[in-house]
Amino acid sequence: MVKSVVCTIGDEILIGQITDSNAGFIARELNKIGVMVVQIRSVGDRQDAIWEAVDASLKEADLLILTGGLGPTRDDITKNTLARYTGSSRFYCSTAQEAHIRDICEKRGGRLFEINRSQADVPETCTVLENKLGTAPGMWFAYQGKVIVSLPGVPYEMEGIFPLVIQAVQQHFSSSLSPIIHRTIATFGIPESALAHKIADWETALPPELHLAYLPNPLSGVRLRLSCYDAHGGALLIEQAINSLKPILGSAIYSTHNQSLIEVVAALLHQKRATVCTAESCTGGKLAALLTSQAGASSYYMGSVLAYDNRIKEELLGVDSQLLHHAGAVSRDCVEAMAKGGQKLLRTDYAVATSGIAGPSGGSPEKPVGTVWIAVAGPQICSSQKFVFAGNRLINIDRFAAAALNMLRLSILD
Amino acid sequence: MVKSVVCTIGDEILIGQITDSNAGFIARELNKIGVMVVQIRSVGDRQDAIWEAVDASLKEADLLILTGGLGPTRDDITKNTLARYTGSSRFYCSTAQEAHIRDICEKRGGRLFEINRSQADVPETCTVLENKLGTAPGMWFAYQGKVIVSLPGVPYEMEGIFPLVIQAVQQHFSSSLSPIIHRTIATFGIPESALAHKIADWETALPPELHLAYLPNPLSGVRLRLSCYDAHGGALLIEQAINSLKPILGSAIYSTHNQSLIEVVAALLHQKRATVCTAESCTGGKLAALLTSQAGASSYYMGSVLAYDNRIKEELLGVDSQLLHHAGAVSRDCVEAMAKGGQKLLRTDYAVATSGIAGPSGGSPEKPVGTVWIAVAGPQICSSQKFVFAGNRLINIDRFAAAALNMLRLSILD
Repeated sequence: MVKSVVCTIGDEILIGQITDSNAGFIARELNKIGVMVVQIRSVGDRQDAIWEAVDASLKEADLLILTGGLGPTRDDITKNTLARYTGSSRFYCSTAQEAHIRDICEKRGGRLFEINRSQADVPETCTVLENKLGTAPGMWFAYQGKVIVSLPGVPYEMEGIFPLVIQAVQQHFSSSLSPIIHRTIATFGIPESALAHKIADWETALPPELHLAYLPNPLSGVRLRLSCYDAHGGALLIEQAINSLKPILGSAIYSTHNQSLIEVVAALLHQKRATVCTAESCTGGKLAALLTSQAGASSYYMGSVLAYDNRIKEELLGVDSQLLHHAGAVSRDCVEAMAKGGQKLLRTDYAVATSGIAGPSGGSPEKPVGTVWIAVAGPQICSSQKFVFAGNRLINIDRFAAAALNMLRLSILD
Repeated sequence: MVKSVVCTIGDEILIGQITDSNAGFIARELNKIGVMVVQIRSVGDRQDAIWEAVDASLKEADLLILTGGLGPTRDDITKNTLARYTGSSRFYCSTAQEAHIRDICEKRGGRLFEINRSQADVPETCTVLENKLGTAPGMWFAYQGKVIVSLPGVPYEMEGIFPLVIQAVQQHFSSSLSPIIHRTIATFGIPESALAHKIADWETALPPELHLAYLPNPLSGVRLRLSCYDAHGGALLIEQAINSLKPILGSAIYSTHNQSLIEVVAALLHQKRATVCTAESCTGGKLAALLTSQAGASSYYMGSVLAYDNRIKEELLGVDSQLLHHAGAVSRDCVEAMAKGGQKLLRTDYAVATSGIAGPSGGSPEKPVGTVWIAVAGPQICSSQKFVFAGNRLINIDRFAAAALNMLRLSILD
């Protein structure tokens, strides 16, 4: 097993000004070829911080990938630090990179400053990984049996160089690489602890080569990730584990192939050539926004009446004012009337309606904040259900919308 | 200067399955009270990895903030690791947290499993930071002159507890904290490079104590952050700089007090006691979702007709079919008709309509992907404008919705 540390360099990460996406990209790419990332670090643009991070990382890993700190200005000090660390006193010019730098400056219509040209000068202890999309080259140092790779911090430049890194890593570590396999089983509708209880026996019976993780999320439900780090027969072990889980969880599983809930719903609607509309109250457009987030949404999604005010529920969706008066807007009768009204008005196969209390105010002992009624009107029947969640306003809206999407999925499956 | 390390825990980060946003949030919050983050680390759900990260972090920092690994399932091991690290052999039950857990399980209508209840049991070496939004409490360990804080990894739970962390850090480290002052000037409608050009003279004239950063974002426009690290008189310097910027940017500035665009629009609507509805096409509910994201939205927001399909534009909003045929759905005439139709149907003071091409398909040479027409119908006049953005589908939808919100803001100000 080849172990790696990823270290991203830049003050802007440490003050929270940018969210580092490079580490995640690198981790996913390395995983695919069987390199395990054991730690991710971010440090500032300071020589001592970089030096210590390199030193500590090489103690726990075979491969260290650094990003950032390779720009042309004085605060970019990664290259000189790595030169000193690897004991290089001399630099050489990469003529290939120099050509790219000239080319880029020409395209930008600016003159070639020496601070740009000198980015092609690299320590003699490294080989160059050419950067065709930017001025700073990647650098590969083989040092005391370990490998240090330094890449620019601009994501698309880093990603552009990365195939060269993968190639070099595969060549260098060929004998020790065995691929890591991950599969995700996405479930919806069972809270994490109840899910753990339900699958406890299955979990206990998992072969020791497999590792299970729970990943709960308001919009995605609980995803279960099975990983196998010793790939010999791992794919088959995971497949078997998934197959034995299916009868336990049934339709609570919405994907075993990395699809999101909305992707699954969109695929079902496409497959059945069915159309859908929404009649939202408390979700305030969030459900519509999810349904229209997919390319090609216009083939299944017709529109929505967003009836935030009760007057709109009556006037546009035809909800009876007596019903609103007696049962209230957050009730089975109201959401069913909304769904049927929307289905009729917008002439779709399915209609999804929501009415609830997102908070922070508006709750009562009988209908606390977090309560929602959801109805799905289909070609044959209209089904409805109540949920009570415990979150803040925005999380409640997310949970309401995801629960509605899941009810739509189950209705189409029926 | 108080130094801090942030350490996020979870295999899902190391395999690149999720992008860690907790570290950035924590860094920004700590910065505000004068705590400097010197390193960010991510490690997996393994006792040795967590142990070593804690050990190494306490060597370089006074404060270590950990997130993640506090869930109820077997792969969550942070709590036990910290108990062992701080030499605690006994646990006690936080009755306050236990009450939250009971409350949450009750609301969800599920039974209280022991694995949930036991989340209230914490090492005797810590004090509890109550988590009202989830089952896992935060924990504060004062250990050998340093502080270790452990928080749940679910972002909104972590963010919900964080004010307690800030309070405790300020109390614990009071004598060593010197605040860093940041003020943000939020602008909308001027692209970053044009903005930089427009304020170049102002930027050059800034006093040397002030540092300027540009923070562009599809939903927020470009925010300018002024920072002063030596707080002596810094607040006044920043105030003066903001005052001299106002005449240069005029109504392009929507906030100098950390309000989001929707917060500003909601405040304006409240202040004018005005109501609004939306008639969305390409934004697919995103604009409505923004308008209803605020607590108390029901006092100004009435509802929406989401006319994704042209038939709905005609039938519900009364857009003329000849108009749709000749000018097309993405046109000034169409969005103005949609806005006026929505305003009439839903009887509101203002109505905002959008029609455009979010992509990836549907573009043409005359109307490329990223084109949007937006109209705002007000009590007196209806104004409309075309924008062309260059992003992917989801970024375009965000930009369209934010541009519509900004047009609404300007209409109300008029």
